[in-house]
Amino acid sequence: MALVTIGDVRRAATRISEHVVRTPLIPCARLSDALGLRVLIKPENLQNTASFKVRGALNTMLTWQENGTLPEGVVGYSAGNHAAAVAYAGQRLGVKVIIAMPSNAVESKVINVRRYGGEIVFTDDLLGTCEELAARHGFPALLPFNLPEVIAGQGTVGLEIAEDHPGVDAVIVPVGGGGLISGIGAAVTALSPATRVIGVEPEISNALALALRHGEVRNLDPVRPTIADGLAAPRAGEHTLENALRYVDEMATVSEDAITAAWADMADATKLIVEPAAVVGLAALQTGAVTFPPGSTVVLVASGGNADLVKLSQVPRSTSG
Amino acid sequence: MALVTIGDVRRAATRISEHVVRTPLIPCARLSDALGLRVLIKPENLQNTASFKVRGALNTMLTWQENGTLPEGVVGYSAGNHAAAVAYAGQRLGVKVIIAMPSNAVESKVINVRRYGGEIVFTDDLLGTCEELAARHGFPALLPFNLPEVIAGQGTVGLEIAEDHPGVDAVIVPVGGGGLISGIGAAVTALSPATRVIGVEPEISNALALALRHGEVRNLDPVRPTIADGLAAPRAGEHTLENALRYVDEMATVSEDAITAAWADMADATKLIVEPAAVVGLAALQTGAVTFPPGSTVVLVASGGNADLVKLSQVPRSTSG
Repeated sequence: MALVTIGDVRRAATRISEHVVRTPLIPCARLSDALGLRVLIKPENLQNTASFKVRGALNTMLTWQENGTLPEGVVGYSAGNHAAAVAYAGQRLGVKVIIAMPSNAVESKVINVRRYGGEIVFTDDLLGTCEELAARHGFPALLPFNLPEVIAGQGTVGLEIAEDHPGVDAVIVPVGGGGLISGIGAAVTALSPATRVIGVEPEISNALALALRHGEVRNLDPVRPTIADGLAAPRAGEHTLENALRYVDEMATVSEDAITAAWADMADATKLIVEPAAVVGLAALQTGAVTFPPGSTVVLVASGGNADLVKLSQVPRSTSG
Repeated sequence: MALVTIGDVRRAATRISEHVVRTPLIPCARLSDALGLRVLIKPENLQNTASFKVRGALNTMLTWQENGTLPEGVVGYSAGNHAAAVAYAGQRLGVKVIIAMPSNAVESKVINVRRYGGEIVFTDDLLGTCEELAARHGFPALLPFNLPEVIAGQGTVGLEIAEDHPGVDAVIVPVGGGGLISGIGAAVTALSPATRVIGVEPEISNALALALRHGEVRNLDPVRPTIADGLAAPRAGEHTLENALRYVDEMATVSEDAITAAWADMADATKLIVEPAAVVGLAALQTGAVTFPPGSTVVLVASGGNADLVKLSQVPRSTSG
């Protein structure tokens, strides 16, 4: 095992550049006014496949291609965004993709995987089914977060933030298995050491905090379903734990109710269609789980946009309109 | 009367820069693949007040301030986005704002105007009520499109497009009264003469095409309500007609059904919350009302995002998901 470095992230950025959207940083006046901060959104819902996951999947497959080890097919497991990302990368590079996804996956995520030619196996045992698929087909697993190449790919989000707006006070990152925050941490810590890298998890699905607390990866027990389906990792990974120990300054958690409220508020204030996983950072600011001095410049990484629009439109509104 | 020039637009850009979001150009792979074009979105739904209108309103009030003629209050009329824009500008500069709006205005637009302290007078006679308010209060009217300062302000959208991506094949612009396309035309024609400037109107609300056809401003008769409420101008203006005659290469229209379908498709493919007015350009591409050689680079100006999310979520979907 080895820490992911800024060099790894820079090489990933070069590798994937022609296949991804270099998403902008968008200031949001309404959230800034409401929170007394300067809020910038990193809208990875505008990314190809509508999630940052495509960065890590592409970096992994392109690295394999460079090394002459690109397989005929890959397997994986995912709530849906990693699945679509692998399917997207596979379609571009001519690699067959078979992914284990939960039986209750969000419909727009299922459609998204199939859009890029990915084959889905629905299951209630993601890790077991993924292993079984790997054995049956003889394909390697392209894991959703616990691979150095995946972490380096997701780190390009942090590289872009640091390039576009050097010296922000904090970057707040949704955390599932910890791949995104590990990569962002590697980039931001190197380029902007004073910037705080803060991870936010659902209270009921806090696999990385559990690993950090014990200094080793532990299974969540019980595994509980969160509205932030994209963050429902049953355990962190050895690589993400190692990187998070080095690069993450602070972790926080938010309740399901806080995520739901933030979901509607984010859509309303930013006019971005985001999924619940993407708003845990906003929820942390709204609930005071994470605080800053007034006027601080804070980046919220809006990780993805594969949401159920009917459900989003039905969240009871505050009076903000 | 006089044409708006690139100099007017550049001065507007300087004047308003600290009050507006410099919106990015976002490539959309899904729309590009579906249409066989390279589609870039100019997402003015991410603008302050969630519409481009704030550019023209600010440029007008700031020009008045420079000239020492900033009034105590202003009146106006609007489907809602210009109203919020004037309220936003008025709140920043300490100017009272009273706006005539239609009785059936979209609720999120009503909330948006009040968010910035604007006073609304609901009416079914927008122009008459606006004149009456001006007379009663002794305030000047800040018109929604037929003012050179407003046109120059909206033109900053075109300036940013030309700066960020020189030499696109076309810019496709939603048209109501013609302020946005006049300003964009002034900027793009000067900076990128080969770029086609194309306006799209609802079939049932085509005030600018009517004026262009007759060489003079004519009232739509009857005035018919369109789902693209932001484009429901009952007539174009003398200034917008003059500028459109010079700067607009092509006009097209789209049906209500085509706008409705494009509304859902745009949200789904781009993950932007846009209002129906913002998608008439996509509708024109989808229906073949506007065509290009394969691979052409086309900018769609997504003019605003003040939409009814419940209605958007209820639009019957094609199978695209």
